[in-house]
Amino acid sequence: MAPPSHVASNHTMDKSITLPPDEIFRNLENAKRFAIDIVAKVRSFDHTASDKLYEISVQEEVTARLHFIKFENAYIETCLDFIKDHLVNTETKVIKATVDKEDEMSCLIKGCNFVLKNIPHEAFVYAKHADSEFRFQTTDPDIFPYLLVNIGSGVSIAKVESEDKFERIGGSSIGGGTFWGLGALLTKTKRFDELLQLASKGQHSSVDMLVKDIYGGSYGYLGLTGDLIASSFGKSATADKEFSKEDMAKSLLHMISNDIGQLACLYARLHNLSRVYFGGFFIRGHPLTMHTITYSINFFTKGEVQALFLRHEGYLGAIGAFLKGAEEDNPNQYSWGENYAGSSGLMSVSPDMYPMQRARSGTFDMLEMDRLDRQLVNLPLLQEPSSYIPDTVDLTEDAPAREYWLFCFEDALDGVVKRAVASQPDMPEAAVRAEKFRQKYRHKLQTLRYQPFAYGSLTVRSLLDTREHCLNEFNFPDPYSKRPWLVDSYDQWLERLKGPPHKCALLFVDNSGLLSRGTEVVLASNSGPALNDVTNGELQILTERIAAMDPVIQSGLRDDRLTLVQNGSSSPCLDLSRLDKALAMVVRERKTDLVIIEGMGRAIHTNYFATLSCESLKLAVIKNSWLADRLGGKLFSVVFKYEVPAGKPSQEAAVLTP
Amino acid sequence: MAPPSHVASNHTMDKSITLPPDEIFRNLENAKRFAIDIVAKVRSFDHTASDKLYEISVQEEVTARLHFIKFENAYIETCLDFIKDHLVNTETKVIKATVDKEDEMSCLIKGCNFVLKNIPHEAFVYAKHADSEFRFQTTDPDIFPYLLVNIGSGVSIAKVESEDKFERIGGSSIGGGTFWGLGALLTKTKRFDELLQLASKGQHSSVDMLVKDIYGGSYGYLGLTGDLIASSFGKSATADKEFSKEDMAKSLLHMISNDIGQLACLYARLHNLSRVYFGGFFIRGHPLTMHTITYSINFFTKGEVQALFLRHEGYLGAIGAFLKGAEEDNPNQYSWGENYAGSSGLMSVSPDMYPMQRARSGTFDMLEMDRLDRQLVNLPLLQEPSSYIPDTVDLTEDAPAREYWLFCFEDALDGVVKRAVASQPDMPEAAVRAEKFRQKYRHKLQTLRYQPFAYGSLTVRSLLDTREHCLNEFNFPDPYSKRPWLVDSYDQWLERLKGPPHKCALLFVDNSGLLSRGTEVVLASNSGPALNDVTNGELQILTERIAAMDPVIQSGLRDDRLTLVQNGSSSPCLDLSRLDKALAMVVRERKTDLVIIEGMGRAIHTNYFATLSCESLKLAVIKNSWLADRLGGKLFSVVFKYEVPAGKPSQEAAVLTP
Repeated sequence: MAPPSHVASNHTMDKSITLPPDEIFRNLENAKRFAIDIVAKVRSFDHTASDKLYEISVQEEVTARLHFIKFENAYIETCLDFIKDHLVNTETKVIKATVDKEDEMSCLIKGCNFVLKNIPHEAFVYAKHADSEFRFQTTDPDIFPYLLVNIGSGVSIAKVESEDKFERIGGSSIGGGTFWGLGALLTKTKRFDELLQLASKGQHSSVDMLVKDIYGGSYGYLGLTGDLIASSFGKSATADKEFSKEDMAKSLLHMISNDIGQLACLYARLHNLSRVYFGGFFIRGHPLTMHTITYSINFFTKGEVQALFLRHEGYLGAIGAFLKGAEEDNPNQYSWGENYAGSSGLMSVSPDMYPMQRARSGTFDMLEMDRLDRQLVNLPLLQEPSSYIPDTVDLTEDAPAREYWLFCFEDALDGVVKRAVASQPDMPEAAVRAEKFRQKYRHKLQTLRYQPFAYGSLTVRSLLDTREHCLNEFNFPDPYSKRPWLVDSYDQWLERLKGPPHKCALLFVDNSGLLSRGTEVVLASNSGPALNDVTNGELQILTERIAAMDPVIQSGLRDDRLTLVQNGSSSPCLDLSRLDKALAMVVRERKTDLVIIEGMGRAIHTNYFATLSCESLKLAVIKNSWLADRLGGKLFSVVFKYEVPAGKPSQEAAVLTP
Repeated sequence: MAPPSHVASNHTMDKSITLPPDEIFRNLENAKRFAIDIVAKVRSFDHTASDKLYEISVQEEVTARLHFIKFENAYIETCLDFIKDHLVNTETKVIKATVDKEDEMSCLIKGCNFVLKNIPHEAFVYAKHADSEFRFQTTDPDIFPYLLVNIGSGVSIAKVESEDKFERIGGSSIGGGTFWGLGALLTKTKRFDELLQLASKGQHSSVDMLVKDIYGGSYGYLGLTGDLIASSFGKSATADKEFSKEDMAKSLLHMISNDIGQLACLYARLHNLSRVYFGGFFIRGHPLTMHTITYSINFFTKGEVQALFLRHEGYLGAIGAFLKGAEEDNPNQYSWGENYAGSSGLMSVSPDMYPMQRARSGTFDMLEMDRLDRQLVNLPLLQEPSSYIPDTVDLTEDAPAREYWLFCFEDALDGVVKRAVASQPDMPEAAVRAEKFRQKYRHKLQTLRYQPFAYGSLTVRSLLDTREHCLNEFNFPDPYSKRPWLVDSYDQWLERLKGPPHKCALLFVDNSGLLSRGTEVVLASNSGPALNDVTNGELQILTERIAAMDPVIQSGLRDDRLTLVQNGSSSPCLDLSRLDKALAMVVRERKTDLVIIEGMGRAIHTNYFATLSCESLKLAVIKNSWLADRLGGKLFSVVFKYEVPAGKPSQEAAVLTP
């Protein structure tokens, strides 16, 4: 679909407002339901707020997608005019303006639950001096209980025990407003970002009294190091000198961060919570405040508790407000995935490094979530679900690998564009759309070169998924839907099917068919298209055709020994922690004792190191010379990884059973 | 002994320093051992510290008394000169200068344990708007565990589990130094006391953002009231107006007090501690900071934990340092009592009300502790030792009663002075000393009129004890040592001794003898003189004389059925929670089943409401018409209170025993 460029031209003329980029409102016209969440948390902060004040969330009925757009209040008029002109006069539109202030906290928590459940790599640990600044956390399907520390003007601390049960267990008046307010009084600097800039250049030790200022060194008897702050602003009590703005701002930042850190730790210990998430405008996108909070938490818990931040923390309130408004069709009955094409990524390392990017993102920030009509769950056969990491290489941490793959995907872009155009021979404007796809994906690749953490850990899977999302964005849902296929290993598969019989095999297939003899087989294929991978729908047809030729397949289908199940994914890769719930049920019912994962995307880029509780086969041909080299092989090397779980539970169980 | 007035005259001349009142050094000349504890906790605070910086503690071998004197560093030269001239050249003096900085915290805690154990009514709850601002706590013999929150320049939080076991479990850099330092930067006021004065006049709501500033009222959903501070200094972030010094100081005070209060609560909950003591220069003598801390603790614990303060909190470090230096004869093997004559009381309600008194006390502050060579313990027969309150009427709370008794003691002063002079007919200078006694005691009474909380809860007992201490101070240890006695109820006692027999009776006698038949008797009399009460020594002689006349007493003494024991007290009243340990042992060994308490001091002013676990008799004749009226009787009414404990354990036990 084309972006509504006419909106931009109309309003630039008569309003003299610099309009947001086209893409901001591009999907709004097709939306049937949307909510405007006017977020004005702190009224007197209106004028200089660095926080985004207005957010709009849209759910399109057709594509089942949630859009969240944050923009500064300067654009509210543009937005409202657009809504009036294009949306309100349509009979079918439903407009919800969320103004209920009573449940700000519950919106925040509803939003937090939503992103934690639905967005992989949502939470991260911030480590300023580490090789990779952002260490993203694997999504534990059991997100509860956790502590949410929201640092707005003040601090609210909530314990969240379940979807419906949370309690504000504490709070503090020493928060972002205190940094801002006291900072303004001390430095005459009125802007929050400028105060942080000042703080980043200051030396707190010239204002704070340190342990060594009192004891001449460490206070060994109590285990206090000399550099520990004994008294914030302790030196300014009696000294007659002037203190620099930078030093005072830094001291203030330390004072507030340490205080919040200690409170968070104490509440976490008191309620026995190990997961502590931080949010609010004090945190949002500010590496310095994330760093000081992280430092404080490490100090007070001696490393036992980690400070966790959220990539979409700034959307929690809006998401929660939308979910509350949409409770008639509860989005929690579905699963959701982040659409990389429609979402701005996590912001740059520091405002100093990429001031332009920050400024832009400071104006608009987007999040799009695609809805799946099915719930995604863990593969029940995973050995340790909580430590399962789908991806084999973390490109965020592995710089040479990142370099290679970014180059590789950029290099392959021309070919993909050609294939996309070729997939729609009857549509003359496909070339224009394909060119837009090229620009968008190339921009994504460039962004990821400098901000590899933009969508969580960068992986071959996320690069593939981003490409799929961008293709979808410009209406190329399945460039491989037409033959000839790029890879067609159907014959190879036919050869394979002479292995020793198992009771039940689960096969995560990518781009090939299947044949079986004697063993129950569960064929798990993609729910939606990705690359040239077979989809569940295609596999249904394919299997019926084979059944017509092959009596084994025929009887297998008839006797229910061959089952086709969708895996819940539309990715060329495979995340065993986000599987279709129906698949997980089949796996349990059939007492599956063999899992076969094959293809580079599913068995090499992801799951290469995954350990399962039953026997497994990971099969792939390395079709990339760099990767083959990296794995110590040659191009087209075969990977045939047969693994038996350490305790061999299935075999031992067999011995016990006569 | 005469105060060393020559010191004053000498040094006023050549040093041009206003010298401390005579009494400060009055006992130093007789001291055989003393420690100078140079307390310079925060070095850069030297110039404007409102804290006392030098303290001197003295232990006289003869009287077994500990003296602690705090004075501002302006007087250190005077003090050192005095020491050099009068003490150092004496061979027998031992001087200890405590400069070891390693164990400041352990000194503090050692001192804290000492005052909690040895000084009744040491700890108090501060209630600004209550009838009596100070609510003193009954001394629980089991003082552990507790939390000590020391608010100096920073905050240290220690968990104290036993005499030897403590741990610094937390701390914060937001303490007194932060109030002082940030306050100085914001208001240009450099003096701590002035900052508090400013704060006492300010309105924090003009600087702080309240819940109602954000939500228009309370945030009912989360149970937050509208007046709750949402963000300290939140209004100063964007407002362009000037804020008054008073308002900023008040906001700062609230911010810091609330923060410390919350931290203290969390540590208390985390370690399951219900007793939380606050100290440090932020607290010391400042009603405003005690109030804000108390308010904060009440808020965060919903009243479950009370903020406790200590009357002698400012001496903890000095006491601890002295005790450490004196470990060769561990003072913990003795019991100690506060000498009301030699101790400055707790300071006035507010600096505004009594500026002169505060100024004086800001210069000198004294604590004297008398040593008893015996350990004091609870009477084992107390029903509920932890809730036992010796005194019948709390004059701190009962204003009419206070008025009456203060008048009464002042009215009786002439008679006491006459009796004191008469008790030393051979000493011509007794009249001069007696006059000094009169002035001192009258001054105490005047002080107590305005500061009834000066030595803990004001009671008839404390008024009597203060008089005894003042008499002792001027060498009238026993004004009643000569006859005629004011009251001599010896004959009355003889009549009494025809009651029904008990196995063993414990009698807390005041001013009469005893006769017994058939029942074992333990006669508990004062260890030292008080009024005309019989002392243990006197009772020994008296009993022998009676034995010569009375065969029952004679055989009782011979067969060990009549035992004379000292009670550990030198007061006309009786505190059953501070009894000689030997007496407690005898009570247990003899399986005492009857306690007889008699006399107004022991059975009316104190213990009238005390419940015991065995049968008891409280006997007195009301010899005061006001009191008789108060109790609903007439002058010389007889009180004969026979009480059997609710569960009647002794009788039931008797039934079970054949």
